[in-house]
Amino acid sequence: MDKHIKALKEIVGEQNCLNDTAHKIAYSYDATRNRYEPDAIVFPRNEDDVSKVLAYCNKHRIIITPRGAGSGFTGGALPVNGGIILGLEKYMNKILEIDMENMIARVQPGVVNKKFQKAVEAVGLFYPPDPASEEYSTLGGNVSENAGGMRAAKYGITKDYVMALRAVLPSGEIIRAGKKTIKDVAGYNIAGILIASEGTLAVITEITLKLLSKPKLRESAMGVFPSIEYAMNAVYKTMACGVTPVAMEFLDNLTICAVEERFHKGLPTDAGAILITDVDGNIPEEIIYAMDKIEEKFKENGCTQFKKAQSVTEIADLWFARRNASQSITVYGSKKLNEDITVPRSKLPELLAHVTQIAQKYQIKIPCFGHTGDGNVHTNVMVDGSNPNELQKGHEAITEIFKVAIELGGTLSGEHGIGLAKAPFMSLAFSDSEMNLFRTIKKAFDPNNILNSGKMGL
Amino acid sequence: MDKHIKALKEIVGEQNCLNDTAHKIAYSYDATRNRYEPDAIVFPRNEDDVSKVLAYCNKHRIIITPRGAGSGFTGGALPVNGGIILGLEKYMNKILEIDMENMIARVQPGVVNKKFQKAVEAVGLFYPPDPASEEYSTLGGNVSENAGGMRAAKYGITKDYVMALRAVLPSGEIIRAGKKTIKDVAGYNIAGILIASEGTLAVITEITLKLLSKPKLRESAMGVFPSIEYAMNAVYKTMACGVTPVAMEFLDNLTICAVEERFHKGLPTDAGAILITDVDGNIPEEIIYAMDKIEEKFKENGCTQFKKAQSVTEIADLWFARRNASQSITVYGSKKLNEDITVPRSKLPELLAHVTQIAQKYQIKIPCFGHTGDGNVHTNVMVDGSNPNELQKGHEAITEIFKVAIELGGTLSGEHGIGLAKAPFMSLAFSDSEMNLFRTIKKAFDPNNILNSGKMGL
Repeated sequence: MDKHIKALKEIVGEQNCLNDTAHKIAYSYDATRNRYEPDAIVFPRNEDDVSKVLAYCNKHRIIITPRGAGSGFTGGALPVNGGIILGLEKYMNKILEIDMENMIARVQPGVVNKKFQKAVEAVGLFYPPDPASEEYSTLGGNVSENAGGMRAAKYGITKDYVMALRAVLPSGEIIRAGKKTIKDVAGYNIAGILIASEGTLAVITEITLKLLSKPKLRESAMGVFPSIEYAMNAVYKTMACGVTPVAMEFLDNLTICAVEERFHKGLPTDAGAILITDVDGNIPEEIIYAMDKIEEKFKENGCTQFKKAQSVTEIADLWFARRNASQSITVYGSKKLNEDITVPRSKLPELLAHVTQIAQKYQIKIPCFGHTGDGNVHTNVMVDGSNPNELQKGHEAITEIFKVAIELGGTLSGEHGIGLAKAPFMSLAFSDSEMNLFRTIKKAFDPNNILNSGKMGL
Repeated sequence: MDKHIKALKEIVGEQNCLNDTAHKIAYSYDATRNRYEPDAIVFPRNEDDVSKVLAYCNKHRIIITPRGAGSGFTGGALPVNGGIILGLEKYMNKILEIDMENMIARVQPGVVNKKFQKAVEAVGLFYPPDPASEEYSTLGGNVSENAGGMRAAKYGITKDYVMALRAVLPSGEIIRAGKKTIKDVAGYNIAGILIASEGTLAVITEITLKLLSKPKLRESAMGVFPSIEYAMNAVYKTMACGVTPVAMEFLDNLTICAVEERFHKGLPTDAGAILITDVDGNIPEEIIYAMDKIEEKFKENGCTQFKKAQSVTEIADLWFARRNASQSITVYGSKKLNEDITVPRSKLPELLAHVTQIAQKYQIKIPCFGHTGDGNVHTNVMVDGSNPNELQKGHEAITEIFKVAIELGGTLSGEHGIGLAKAPFMSLAFSDSEMNLFRTIKKAFDPNNILNSGKMGL
């Protein structure tokens, strides 16, 4: 490896290729809290560096794990088979262009999501994808995992905003995919397959994103429900009634109680579930129309209290509660086995009923919350991480949850990806033919398997 | 071939594999008016037939050209290298499910677009993609070409509605790609790369489509402009001002005059250009807000007359004029070299200025119209098809137009695809690395090159 580190230093400069212990530890983990040390960390300064590093590593069969903020939940940025970390956050973190006339931006992959949102909002534009990690996750990571967020019910997810990419193939060749045009059907949709490919096919070096106009008005409300079932019925019946709320977020009783215990935001701890919803628009009548429809549908489906936020502070409090659900539920166990299954919305009542049964069967707590407006539920199996028995039970529970989700026509992952964490479950979701096709595609892009190898069950 | 026809008849039944002259002629052309006769036409009755036919043809290296309505503009359904036509319109033309609770439909590839639109509208739902060919083109063809339409400015294109596909690989293996869920990031985005792949990678056997609620209200208007330049400035400035019209369609003076000559719809034949726009919503205030904004932006950019349609008949007349632009302009020449270049919207004035210069240079008429709301312009080079000199001039003009579009950051095709017609221009738009990547992907799916071979310049 010493020879290779010397060669890589010649490409990116002495100070941009590190293999000291401190850096190897710092780049050994992500949000899964699992750890794998890389042999070195390389910080490319630009696309040309990326190209040269990839060509070198391809020639010498050195595994490369591209990394943004390392905030993923499935181990996508972990160097499970060693090799180098390609750190894109250090230099390749610039917003290159905000094109107001075409409502388009060009960015480098290391730009932090929230920084980008703020930059475009400063000029009256709007980038909707807002994953819970928005304060630190990078747009390159968002594209590689096809990140969702709170606003997906109305505005869709990352893939709906990617117009074009520049990327480097393992050979070092630079390709462009897509255009700064709304429509482009020339050639295969390479950008489409790079999105959500978890850094296994190419290294993204530039992203062209579609922007919208920032809506002028916004209103939030909370619906209180006696049970999860009432709430889940309300979700899909509201979404089918002709209004499109920006968000339709769900917290179950366990989550509500955990958030209250930590943050005292005035949530109803005796509720079976709450839904938090958001509408936006440019004129007051639109907001009133949508909120009235939502209130009507909620009340038809057992909502006992419909509370509109009366001030900016109340809106902020509601969303603070939602955004901090994930960290609050650690009161139920030191280890969180965090999944993000997604089902067709009408299957939400059935899914949640199964999850309740599974929690009872294994005698563990499974607080649930999530983006029910798009059928995505974060089911959190909470166990004592120091107790092997509990961990084993937790993993069995998760396997059952995955099976139920698949049976209901759902998917292993709505937004977190497969990475390492869900790789063992791929055979539940895909046939041999489908897995073989994935492997054939992987091989077509990366014949020497140097890019993020060991991921996605391939 | 006789042996193969016998074998194929055993798979699909005697009456579903034809090789008589009448059928070979009937299936030899598409909307390009070019002709290539197949060796036989095979009508699969179901997915299982498709699987068996593909496996057989793969084994015996028989080329298969999948075909819906044969209404494409680029030769995608033409059997340029012989082999069989796989006719999906005869049996595989059923709407399998309209799921109101999840606002999703499942269809077979041979369903005609308009028939599907009507079926979902009958239950209050809405399928926005409405290519000009909606009365006859099939959803399988729409997906394979990633068809656009009049409503793309607000509602996007076919790919924005495809949630999942079932498809058969050349080996005969059946795969599923995507789910009936809004979000799904498990595995590579196979559906993403099958869309717009022009039948070269797999045969689509089932399509799961996202539906919306049908907006209750709609209003149309026409803006009259003294010149193309004024109109093009109005387009991109309106689109960037915070309203999102459903459509923002453009007709130049040549097109206006041709439509008037044919249909007498009261269009202003002295205008340099007109824009036809449409807004929709659920409450009158939304419509008023949007129309007022559009009128304001149009008038700031030289609009001399802004005329709102006052009745259902007036709306129908406006859209009749737009929808019949393509057939009307044949008054300018017997042969239409029809392109659908697309540029970033702010480049529309520059693009159209170049097209005017090119028309002058070659002394030919190039009537233009199209979906300027998304930067897509149909530039129609009209020549006398029986005059080789004119044809030659026409092709030279088109090459110049393509070059200008690419230089302005645009694409060869916004919605028609590459097929045969634009294959010679692929090298203008893509580097060797990009073309090689396309070929590698083609080979990964179709190692024996049996699916629609000879297309897309691969």
